Amino acid sequence: MSSAIGSKFKTTVFGESHGPAIGAVIDAPPAGYKIDLDGILVQAARRAPGQDPSATARKEADTPEILSGLLDGVTTGAPLALIIRNSDHRSHNYENIAARPRPSHADYAAGVRYNGHNDIRGGGNFSGRLTAPLTVAGAVARQILKAHGITIGGHVSFIGSTADVPFDPVNVDEELLNSLNTQYFSVVSSEAKAQMQAEISEARKSGDSIGGEVEIAVTGFPTGIGSPTARGIENAVSNAVFCVPAVKGIEFGAGFGFTSMLGSEANDAMYFDGDTVKCKTNNCGGITGGISNGMPLLLRCAIKPTPSIAKEQDTINLKTKSNDKLIIEGRHDPCIVPRALPAIEAAVAIALVDLLWEVKPL
Amino acid sequence: MSSAIGSKFKTTVFGESHGPAIGAVIDAPPAGYKIDLDGILVQAARRAPGQDPSATARKEADTPEILSGLLDGVTTGAPLALIIRNSDHRSHNYENIAARPRPSHADYAAGVRYNGHNDIRGGGNFSGRLTAPLTVAGAVARQILKAHGITIGGHVSFIGSTADVPFDPVNVDEELLNSLNTQYFSVVSSEAKAQMQAEISEARKSGDSIGGEVEIAVTGFPTGIGSPTARGIENAVSNAVFCVPAVKGIEFGAGFGFTSMLGSEANDAMYFDGDTVKCKTNNCGGITGGISNGMPLLLRCAIKPTPSIAKEQDTINLKTKSNDKLIIEGRHDPCIVPRALPAIEAAVAIALVDLLWEVKPL
Amino acid sequence: MSSAIGSKFKTTVFGESHGPAIGAVIDAPPAGYKIDLDGILVQAARRAPGQDPSATARKEADTPEILSGLLDGVTTGAPLALIIRNSDHRSHNYENIAARPRPSHADYAAGVRYNGHNDIRGGGNFSGRLTAPLTVAGAVARQILKAHGITIGGHVSFIGSTADVPFDPVNVDEELLNSLNTQYFSVVSSEAKAQMQAEISEARKSGDSIGGEVEIAVTGFPTGIGSPTARGIENAVSNAVFCVPAVKGIEFGAGFGFTSMLGSEANDAMYFDGDTVKCKTNNCGGITGGISNGMPLLLRCAIKPTPSIAKEQDTINLKTKSNDKLIIEGRHDPCIVPRALPAIEAAVAIALVDLLWEVKPL
Amino acid sequence: MSSAIGSKFKTTVFGESHGPAIGAVIDAPPAGYKIDLDGILVQAARRAPGQDPSATARKEADTPEILSGLLDGVTTGAPLALIIRNSDHRSHNYENIAARPRPSHADYAAGVRYNGHNDIRGGGNFSGRLTAPLTVAGAVARQILKAHGITIGGHVSFIGSTADVPFDPVNVDEELLNSLNTQYFSVVSSEAKAQMQAEISEARKSGDSIGGEVEIAVTGFPTGIGSPTARGIENAVSNAVFCVPAVKGIEFGAGFGFTSMLGSEANDAMYFDGDTVKCKTNNCGGITGGISNGMPLLLRCAIKPTPSIAKEQDTINLKTKSNDKLIIEGRHDPCIVPRALPAIEAAVAIALVDLLWEVKPL
Repeated sequence: MSSAIGSKFKTTVFGESHGPAIGAVIDAPPAGYKIDLDGILVQAARRAPGQDPSATARKEADTPEILSGLLDGVTTGAPLALIIRNSDHRSHNYENIAARPRPSHADYAAGVRYNGHNDIRGGGNFSGRLTAPLTVAGAVARQILKAHGITIGGHVSFIGSTADVPFDPVNVDEELLNSLNTQYFSVVSSEAKAQMQAEISEARKSGDSIGGEVEIAVTGFPTGIGSPTARGIENAVSNAVFCVPAVKGIEFGAGFGFTSMLGSEANDAMYFDGDTVKCKTNNCGGITGGISNGMPLLLRCAIKPTPSIAKEQDTINLKTKSNDKLIIEGRHDPCIVPRALPAIEAAVAIALVDLLWEVKPL
Repeated sequence: MSSAIGSKFKTTVFGESHGPAIGAVIDAPPAGYKIDLDGILVQAARRAPGQDPSATARKEADTPEILSGLLDGVTTGAPLALIIRNSDHRSHNYENIAARPRPSHADYAAGVRYNGHNDIRGGGNFSGRLTAPLTVAGAVARQILKAHGITIGGHVSFIGSTADVPFDPVNVDEELLNSLNTQYFSVVSSEAKAQMQAEISEARKSGDSIGGEVEIAVTGFPTGIGSPTARGIENAVSNAVFCVPAVKGIEFGAGFGFTSMLGSEANDAMYFDGDTVKCKTNNCGGITGGISNGMPLLLRCAIKPTPSIAKEQDTINLKTKSNDKLIIEGRHDPCIVPRALPAIEAAVAIALVDLLWEVKPL
Repeated sequence: MSSAIGSKFKTTVFGESHGPAIGAVIDAPPAGYKIDLDGILVQAARRAPGQDPSATARKEADTPEILSGLLDGVTTGAPLALIIRNSDHRSHNYENIAARPRPSHADYAAGVRYNGHNDIRGGGNFSGRLTAPLTVAGAVARQILKAHGITIGGHVSFIGSTADVPFDPVNVDEELLNSLNTQYFSVVSSEAKAQMQAEISEARKSGDSIGGEVEIAVTGFPTGIGSPTARGIENAVSNAVFCVPAVKGIEFGAGFGFTSMLGSEANDAMYFDGDTVKCKTNNCGGITGGISNGMPLLLRCAIKPTPSIAKEQDTINLKTKSNDKLIIEGRHDPCIVPRALPAIEAAVAIALVDLLWEVKPL
Repeated sequence: MSSAIGSKFKTTVFGESHGPAIGAVIDAPPAGYKIDLDGILVQAARRAPGQDPSATARKEADTPEILSGLLDGVTTGAPLALIIRNSDHRSHNYENIAARPRPSHADYAAGVRYNGHNDIRGGGNFSGRLTAPLTVAGAVARQILKAHGITIGGHVSFIGSTADVPFDPVNVDEELLNSLNTQYFSVVSSEAKAQMQAEISEARKSGDSIGGEVEIAVTGFPTGIGSPTARGIENAVSNAVFCVPAVKGIEFGAGFGFTSMLGSEANDAMYFDGDTVKCKTNNCGGITGGISNGMPLLLRCAIKPTPSIAKEQDTINLKTKSNDKLIIEGRHDPCIVPRALPAIEAAVAIALVDLLWEVKPL
């Protein structure tokens, strides 16, 4: 019922794809943090469509306007609201959705949920476009984390049959994260990226789409943040990343790899590296008992292929109450994974500011 | 910071392993539901230790006492509180934990989090024992769901190298769920179960432990429950299941399998089965846009091997500020997956009552 | 820390007096309610400044723009966001506030709270101007309540030494409420209003301001809404109305009059009026045990005189660290009570939608 | 719907008057605070019945058992749960309530709210008895506040026609507070107390009850705690105190006295007292813009006479669907104000820990 992530840095995203504007309210950033607008635009640009041949051709002027909460570029402690105007409506492409819900889209479930009152134009409130204000809100969160020496970065770790080089769990390179988290379509290995692009291109040519996985790491996160039971890091982060449409799975550290591990393989042996407590492995992904243990935070998310494909599909016709066929018109991303990555990083950033603030004063 | 799951059926779990009692408060169950105490005990028994050779030998008298919220076995609408007395304290086994944190346990992170004030005896508030009141609270939730025709059941889908027969995603058998959800160590295939028990036995003999995976299905959940963004079913359910210690990953429907799928393979084509809207596949796990679409809900959770193993491990000594060795004494479950299953089902049940109630009056 | 009122119809107000815009997000109105924009403007107009000689001369173009959550004038079930642009900045009037905080204003306390980062221009986030989006959000709430036969109205019950005719507690006239709740400066008795205006005029002439009281009634609110302990009607409504700056007290029914009453005088004897359960008196203000009992809801709020007066005042100088004098320049309302009334009604409306929705499906 | 006060020091009260036990869970006190059990018992004793002739003769063994969250008397950071066993059930006195709701009690409204499933024995979850665990939870909060130099105390400021000496708003005596907040029936003036007791005695003799007012002050509360809009001190404190049954009004500082004040009278002129910022008056009750300004916090609550009186009353009969007469049997407090005082102080303490913690690390 609530569209808000977090509790102290509570972020509510609003808007519909074809309404006047989309936006977010952060209630409320801690006072006194310098927020660099260019840094916000960098994140917005990573998520923006139309950047390369693999992305949708739809153009959007996604420059956010910040309405409150900043004075001379510094947070005031009051709620920070931002909006992004919608500009490129081609609703005629969506006219037949009301009668014929798109398979694996929210159309049918949302129609039941809201008794047909939901705005179906462009997916309405369910549109991936809602990740634009989320990404901007996350950019604010990232800068607050940065001021505390915390860096978030990620890469497209899998698309189709192509894997990128995974992060080194015990020794995540902060420089690498900083390089990845300012790029569009971040991949560690350029060979892997080329191959991923080829797989995407192939999907586009055949009127299809393709899924993938992202891996995200966080360095510099202090030890001792988080809580047991329902406010652990895993709870808060998973709650946040499932805000990004198409995320269908999340795992921390070894994640599903634990299924076939013995305890003696899985346990992260501890040692002193000078005065610093470290682990020899990082299967726990930096989290034990819901609390950070000083190792890098590590998580991966599964992203389903966008359901908007050009191929003819079987669906129902709610007007005629009979089975029907559907061809989705318009141009669509064959792979949303590169653009989902900054949105997922943003969700993680928001959750982490919230968790940090619960324990440390901001 | 909050130990509570949910918002309307808000469940707060409390207690420490070696304190006077553990328990839960549900604030508050809807009024007028008949709660069968035997049904509660069935769930508590599924989670209880000491039932078979693969479980810990520690005995617990885990009969819950319900303190409020029920009158003549019917919910009053007031908060339902329950407690379970602790009885079998052998704190001497844990005396060396303060100095030498157990690898992959919460010991070290929690010590930093609470400045050393946390109760480390038996894991304190981080103990798996806290899943006992969670399971009982979930048993109340299950009965409320049952009154609305909703059934939750699950099985141990993986242990080590052994897989159970997965659920049929489009046609989950409610009878099968009802059989599984009253058993200890629920597995569909008896051959698979025997092999899992063999793997567990082997781990125990070598002083080791072993991880696994559970698969959970929900039938009868109405279409149109859930919301986009932060109150989708995935958000709420993942937030709840990570309350269960050792859960390190969750996926819905095809989950991480989406990574290598094309949209044309992934999309769940829709059709009318009489008047009922169904999907030919159920890769979405019954959820699109965060909202139930009428297909069975399907999820899997990864469970790490319990970090309490008998083998000698490398750790640190916080008193001497040097590296040290640790042997964990006492008897421990070599595999907690069978006992984690009813606790995870309970967390799912609590989240689903909450989601249901947000849309439908209870 | 949270600027949000309510839980299901969660209303977050944002903005600063001299920033680009102020606004509100309602997360989220129930789907399917027709929202009349003229009805919203009527409420906005009741709160708008510059309407009569007793109000501030500052002009504002307070027409809200609704950005989301409405399609063809009907709520979609998605968050409803609205903004109001700021247009009439004269920040030079406020330049000396940073050094010399205004007595009984938030200036000093907020400076400590936010380490001097808060926007002090025009009171920033503390400005009475923030009641504009609150009033608009409340107008949406009122229309939802209206669809369920619930009417909210109020009047300026006291200014200085002048009292208006109080509502008849057991028999509140819905027609009277509908007349009052569309007016500016609602008063039942025209004689009382004239006398109030005279008192206000006198205060203005002497460079002073004057306080007052408002009385609000709600008819048609169903019996059985609300909960004991922390989610009673009194809890929720008082939490909401203290969002309106200058409110310093609230009482329900006989309120502080109970102090000198005997139980036999105070108790509201019950009787059947046909099939309807009624009370002969309404000292409880329609609320027992936090729950509505079917009688009209009745409350009064105390409003302090606006602290912005033209007279010289004693204050401190934070730069020189010495005592100082202050003259507040610019024109200010000598009495904010008439404009506070619709904002308080709005806060009540938001709280009541929330309470109603917790028990009844919307 | 939620019985919880606060967000970080979230206190959920549970239980029914005639159930097995009542209690509270605090989720969760900050770690590392020494909690003195005798100090808890002092507060419990102030609220306990049967202490003087003016109180109910019903005996209760109200010693709380703390189940979790404390280790060697120090908070662990985990949820603190406490229970108080019920022991003195005389349900036969309440048998006729189901049919004949007591005027100004919750009986009728609660019956509608919970479709008749609520526990009506002894008022069930609506009983004043629920203030026992609230008072104990508040005693924990008071000790945490005390560790930060913050003192809460109050007195019965009015009963019937008798007023006590009010606190000096600008100069509240901490020693006086410490004397008052350990007594039963705290009154500053012994003459006033004697006269109040006489009024109460008279009410009891005539089978009646009598209302009153309490005044509460807080010293040592730091400047700059609280937030604008919905998380101001007034919002949080009023939300908390209305948890105490019979509270029907609250005012801060001059409160309803503002109604007839001019701004020049009302404004609290500021000055430096050495390096400390003070106000010459304290009409704001230590709160401006929802934030503490360094002056003592001051509030008063109106308490209605207990509706349980011995005199015959008019009510309805829900079985016969006709008007009826009711005589409430059993012995009842003729005046609950002295016992309500420590419960209201407890609610204030809980709200203040929560507010403090939002801004300062605990």
